[in-house]
Amino acid sequence: MVNEREIIDKLKAGEIKLREIEKYTDNIDQAVAIRRKFIEEVSNSKIEHLSNYSIDMESASKKNIEQPIGAVQIPVGIAGPLKINGDYAQGEFYIPLATSEGALIASINRGCSTITGAGGVTTKIISDKMTRAPVIKAKSVTDALEIKAWIENNFKELKKAAEVTTRHGMLIKIDPILVVGRYVYPRFVFTTGDSMGMNMVTIATEAALSLLSHKTGAHVIASSGNVCVDKKPSSINMVEGRGKSLVAEIIVPKEIVEKKLKSTSEAIVEVNTSKNLIGSAISGSMGFNAQYANMIGAIFLATGQDEAHIVEGSLGITTASREENGDLYFSVTLPDVPIATVGGGTSIGTARECLEIMGVYGNEKVHKFAEIIAGIVLAGELSLMAALAAGHLARAHKELGRG
Amino acid sequence: MVNEREIIDKLKAGEIKLREIEKYTDNIDQAVAIRRKFIEEVSNSKIEHLSNYSIDMESASKKNIEQPIGAVQIPVGIAGPLKINGDYAQGEFYIPLATSEGALIASINRGCSTITGAGGVTTKIISDKMTRAPVIKAKSVTDALEIKAWIENNFKELKKAAEVTTRHGMLIKIDPILVVGRYVYPRFVFTTGDSMGMNMVTIATEAALSLLSHKTGAHVIASSGNVCVDKKPSSINMVEGRGKSLVAEIIVPKEIVEKKLKSTSEAIVEVNTSKNLIGSAISGSMGFNAQYANMIGAIFLATGQDEAHIVEGSLGITTASREENGDLYFSVTLPDVPIATVGGGTSIGTARECLEIMGVYGNEKVHKFAEIIAGIVLAGELSLMAALAAGHLARAHKELGRG
Amino acid sequence: MVNEREIIDKLKAGEIKLREIEKYTDNIDQAVAIRRKFIEEVSNSKIEHLSNYSIDMESASKKNIEQPIGAVQIPVGIAGPLKINGDYAQGEFYIPLATSEGALIASINRGCSTITGAGGVTTKIISDKMTRAPVIKAKSVTDALEIKAWIENNFKELKKAAEVTTRHGMLIKIDPILVVGRYVYPRFVFTTGDSMGMNMVTIATEAALSLLSHKTGAHVIASSGNVCVDKKPSSINMVEGRGKSLVAEIIVPKEIVEKKLKSTSEAIVEVNTSKNLIGSAISGSMGFNAQYANMIGAIFLATGQDEAHIVEGSLGITTASREENGDLYFSVTLPDVPIATVGGGTSIGTARECLEIMGVYGNEKVHKFAEIIAGIVLAGELSLMAALAAGHLARAHKELGRG
Amino acid sequence: MVNEREIIDKLKAGEIKLREIEKYTDNIDQAVAIRRKFIEEVSNSKIEHLSNYSIDMESASKKNIEQPIGAVQIPVGIAGPLKINGDYAQGEFYIPLATSEGALIASINRGCSTITGAGGVTTKIISDKMTRAPVIKAKSVTDALEIKAWIENNFKELKKAAEVTTRHGMLIKIDPILVVGRYVYPRFVFTTGDSMGMNMVTIATEAALSLLSHKTGAHVIASSGNVCVDKKPSSINMVEGRGKSLVAEIIVPKEIVEKKLKSTSEAIVEVNTSKNLIGSAISGSMGFNAQYANMIGAIFLATGQDEAHIVEGSLGITTASREENGDLYFSVTLPDVPIATVGGGTSIGTARECLEIMGVYGNEKVHKFAEIIAGIVLAGELSLMAALAAGHLARAHKELGRG
Repeated sequence: MVNEREIIDKLKAGEIKLREIEKYTDNIDQAVAIRRKFIEEVSNSKIEHLSNYSIDMESASKKNIEQPIGAVQIPVGIAGPLKINGDYAQGEFYIPLATSEGALIASINRGCSTITGAGGVTTKIISDKMTRAPVIKAKSVTDALEIKAWIENNFKELKKAAEVTTRHGMLIKIDPILVVGRYVYPRFVFTTGDSMGMNMVTIATEAALSLLSHKTGAHVIASSGNVCVDKKPSSINMVEGRGKSLVAEIIVPKEIVEKKLKSTSEAIVEVNTSKNLIGSAISGSMGFNAQYANMIGAIFLATGQDEAHIVEGSLGITTASREENGDLYFSVTLPDVPIATVGGGTSIGTARECLEIMGVYGNEKVHKFAEIIAGIVLAGELSLMAALAAGHLARAHKELGRG
Repeated sequence: MVNEREIIDKLKAGEIKLREIEKYTDNIDQAVAIRRKFIEEVSNSKIEHLSNYSIDMESASKKNIEQPIGAVQIPVGIAGPLKINGDYAQGEFYIPLATSEGALIASINRGCSTITGAGGVTTKIISDKMTRAPVIKAKSVTDALEIKAWIENNFKELKKAAEVTTRHGMLIKIDPILVVGRYVYPRFVFTTGDSMGMNMVTIATEAALSLLSHKTGAHVIASSGNVCVDKKPSSINMVEGRGKSLVAEIIVPKEIVEKKLKSTSEAIVEVNTSKNLIGSAISGSMGFNAQYANMIGAIFLATGQDEAHIVEGSLGITTASREENGDLYFSVTLPDVPIATVGGGTSIGTARECLEIMGVYGNEKVHKFAEIIAGIVLAGELSLMAALAAGHLARAHKELGRG
Repeated sequence: MVNEREIIDKLKAGEIKLREIEKYTDNIDQAVAIRRKFIEEVSNSKIEHLSNYSIDMESASKKNIEQPIGAVQIPVGIAGPLKINGDYAQGEFYIPLATSEGALIASINRGCSTITGAGGVTTKIISDKMTRAPVIKAKSVTDALEIKAWIENNFKELKKAAEVTTRHGMLIKIDPILVVGRYVYPRFVFTTGDSMGMNMVTIATEAALSLLSHKTGAHVIASSGNVCVDKKPSSINMVEGRGKSLVAEIIVPKEIVEKKLKSTSEAIVEVNTSKNLIGSAISGSMGFNAQYANMIGAIFLATGQDEAHIVEGSLGITTASREENGDLYFSVTLPDVPIATVGGGTSIGTARECLEIMGVYGNEKVHKFAEIIAGIVLAGELSLMAALAAGHLARAHKELGRG
Repeated sequence: MVNEREIIDKLKAGEIKLREIEKYTDNIDQAVAIRRKFIEEVSNSKIEHLSNYSIDMESASKKNIEQPIGAVQIPVGIAGPLKINGDYAQGEFYIPLATSEGALIASINRGCSTITGAGGVTTKIISDKMTRAPVIKAKSVTDALEIKAWIENNFKELKKAAEVTTRHGMLIKIDPILVVGRYVYPRFVFTTGDSMGMNMVTIATEAALSLLSHKTGAHVIASSGNVCVDKKPSSINMVEGRGKSLVAEIIVPKEIVEKKLKSTSEAIVEVNTSKNLIGSAISGSMGFNAQYANMIGAIFLATGQDEAHIVEGSLGITTASREENGDLYFSVTLPDVPIATVGGGTSIGTARECLEIMGVYGNEKVHKFAEIIAGIVLAGELSLMAALAAGHLARAHKELGRG
């Protein structure tokens, strides 16, 4: 039988480490409880809610978390129905979104309703890949270019070495191979199936690097050289794509713009140009959009995606134009959305359920999921842009009235 | 008495909208249950875990979420103790982190242990502010410069108008005021106390804009013109700061670098230069660091921060250098970390508990919380950089051995 | 008497250095001729044209050039008349442009003619400054923030120290003061009158730094820390401005767009949005324009400006919109144009003449010159954008015809 | 016989246009003189020096200039000898540089002398290409992806169509093909031999686009969509390369660093890290170097390159590290240097002579020229970095002395 008190005292005395509690308990939930109790005592705080989880901690502790003390709860709201006309996602969807930002889901929902009323959003996947780019230190620039050439000339061998390590990953190219002084940054580009794939590609890249080092003497400084670029905003990912590169568009009839969005095509175009394009340009922003991060964040959290990937996932450009007949053309482009429908946090209870609500849990589902994401981002973006434009119209009327 | 079946059927028939369920139920949890049941039926899925929440939905539905169906659970692990020598955070802290990325907390924890063993991390707050920058369309560039001048010359009046709307917010400057063609982007800069403050500054800015429009005829196109810049990575926020601008540093004695981190100062410096600085430079990355997003993401989720702010919060630059005696100097700089210890998601059960574990829930706590964040980011960054460098050393030894 | 042969032989033997020839000659032109002869011999080439200069080499060798062998000639064409409605430049101007790019001047000239026909371009100076930002290495982040605070609190003293070194320069602020780890980058902002001012502000900043170091022990690593930012494209200069920050605009009547530019307002707006805004956004370009560099380059070379400043001078954003009546609104914004009408290369014969053609040589002329630059940039930009749009229209007609 | 007075009077009266003078004169030099005289009169200025040119204006007026009034003179100094160990440039070179920035050539020359004393600079060409990327407006995102696929599937046909227009240009790939909303930006990548090639690739791309439009109905909005990216700083060109992508390196022995450069390897590394890397990072600068623009500018002007290409040519990253034995490793990387040894301004008298001094005028010389550029950039960069570091050392000594 476990003596909770004794373990806590030993933790306090430093005789047991936080990560070692599991050695002294019968099961993990006990360990979690003791760790939580310890934290309560040392921080002199009271923990009730963190303990209220239904996660299978046994499983999570192997794949998702160390030194667990429970789980955080984030409210989930539902938006929809959202009509999507994609290659993979077709029909009407309800989309679970986790957030604590009031009014966000209401706003997204207005976008969904507008879209559905207008016949649906078209979604497309431009490309699908995951990358890892180590940094190699060559002896000289001459050596650097020889290593670059060796990689180019021995792609098949490197591919073979990489793919030995994985069932689902395929090395599709090593390109670009950047050279700065004597440093070399080969960008390994994989497809990874329904997994997000970072671990997979890291391991596979390491295997290829072993071969490279063995054959050329190339010295790897770090298995990531920030040309990947993982979890940082980057221009290379805007250009080359990473994760899923997505685009979605809709034409909203003039009447719907006016009735439903309380705005006009002209006003929305003007907001897009002055804010998302020119405002972003002058402020050196890499996000030429209004709020992709809100939708990406909310759906990533709901579905067990890696929260740090919100950084990449929310990059992108919104376009808007007025069609000749006065309708509104509106699009979102997201070049860098790393997602999964298997692995990572996707199998944790609530995440799995959120994926299932959309019919995208498990294998062969990631492209459908990607298109739903593109659709929901457009819904939220359209709604906010219209709201900004409506405010602008309201002010314009008021100003006219005042004059 | 509520007839669940009837409501669901009406939802299906489109006679009731998703957001209207609360009108027909006795309490919100009932409404949540019905909404969930409806979603189960239309998506043909089974929901168990989402319903397992202890959030006060009554309260959350007013501030945090619309159309709730439950809550997502994300595992929380604990890292620490982390010794912090800050102006506000002083002593040893245990830090709750929400993530599903396996090995992350173990890695951060190694950083904590290294830091604590080395005497602690020094943390500083460089600045503290929240911003909102609308876009105004002037009649001409002449008019644009007149509006700019009017703002500069009437700061006090604008400040008064803005501050009427808020108890905690103070307008400290309107600067810079960018002009592009006839568009004007004045950047309103506030302090917001312990709130993150976006709503506060939006409302306050709107009030100031009303005055501006009234006095000058300036026409506001959108209350945000992407010069704020909210939830997008931007150079202006790197330069000017937004939210809390933080810096943390440590000198790790040579012996600890070797024993604990299994690396050397030279190796870590080389990884920092080739990856975080040069790799980021060539790839056009705005993040000159290895993994700030992981730590920012995990602590933001644990404590009820806005997940979309991970985008801004994770910007920053890591420096590393070898001191003359061989010790390692290591720093992290985070210019743009929007956080709160009151408001937003911070009062939701689990978030509040996570803040309380660190002693930073509520008023007068946000600076302490900011310093803890700076500390934990350094812990995670140092640990990963050392691990990469250790891999590099291991490879170097192997290569030497092979030679 | 000078023995040319002997000097050349000694140059070849390494007994005289290239920079020492002047010691052995009666005047500088003789030295230039000998140096050229030496180069002819060692490179086995024939030099005729380089010797055909009318520059006062005696004067140039003190201020502009070392080891001269003559001068390069670049053809100068004249564009205009260009009607400018500025605060400083008013009336019609002929503008000398040095280039070897065929068709450039013809294209710019078409822009001038359009503008003049439309009543002239409005030009404005947003701000005027020159900056220098050293990098200081503090002992720690604590020390870094203390140095920052000291600078903020002792601005008057620093200003006094800086201004002792210069008659024309005035230190107007030290802001921002960036901190990264223990590095501090204070940005010294000066006005510099009619000089471009880099040397002036470097010397003045050094004087202020001496005081700073003396008082605080701050250690200056380099007198420029790339936050200035001199001769590199940078976001901070887009935001804060450097040199002259300029804006110019015009409304081109619909008929002129059609008759003269063979295009339509709609077509030009579409090219601007898809190319200058969206194309630049996706490619990570800092220049949201079509060809500012061509006009900036040509006028900089003609007037003796520093050619390396073309990098900064050509940054900027073009806007275009269709007015309600179908007219074209068109603007250029150039935040970072470092120029002079005195000093540097401006007094060299041809440069002086080119400045005089525009009536902007010498003191009290730099603002007029700045506005002319803004005007000519708009002329060239408008012309190219219209040409691209006309091509697009031509293709559209062809496609329609084909259908 | 030409009546100068009459022509000038007609010019003033608007009866003859500036570009039409040649119709009324016997030869171009006469027309140039009349045009100059006209400008003198209308601007009430005196022109002497601009007329002092030896350019063959007949030829220049066909290829390089319109409405010529003469030529600007820019002083040319000579730097060297510079020892280069390249693949194409081998041996010692004297390098002509056109500038009016005092002390620049002296500084570059010190770099040359250091390099030559250290055994020479190694130079390499990473890649060689010229690009043009039009913007196409598709009917929808579906259509956009179909156009993208058509381009990918019909590369050979497009290549054939493009290459019909040129003897020297070869279309090597169309990649990347960026999609934003319904806009498509295919990047056409050519080799262009010894020409800089912009005109060549524009014409060739237009030909390919004709085929594309004919086959797919794709509508080209503009023949350049700012993904090329021509004459603007851009991240895509840093990653993909444009013009010549160059790298150069040297190891400077410790003794030479100390004796010649009056500095130490450590000090130079510290300046490079704090200024070129960290300073550039925090200021959002795309140039991670100290002064590439100065060397690129001076050699471009001397040799008849397009001055507007200084913007691209000066992008790049400097690296510095201390070797184990205390020597200094120093490199420059320039990904985007568009140059020519034939065509453009290269055949103008002085430009041709400057190219001939280096033995790089005409065909089959552009790679040699590229390597010389890489070498001279390194020379100037090294010299300035050492000077900054020496100042830093001097200050350090002074501070120590003061203590």
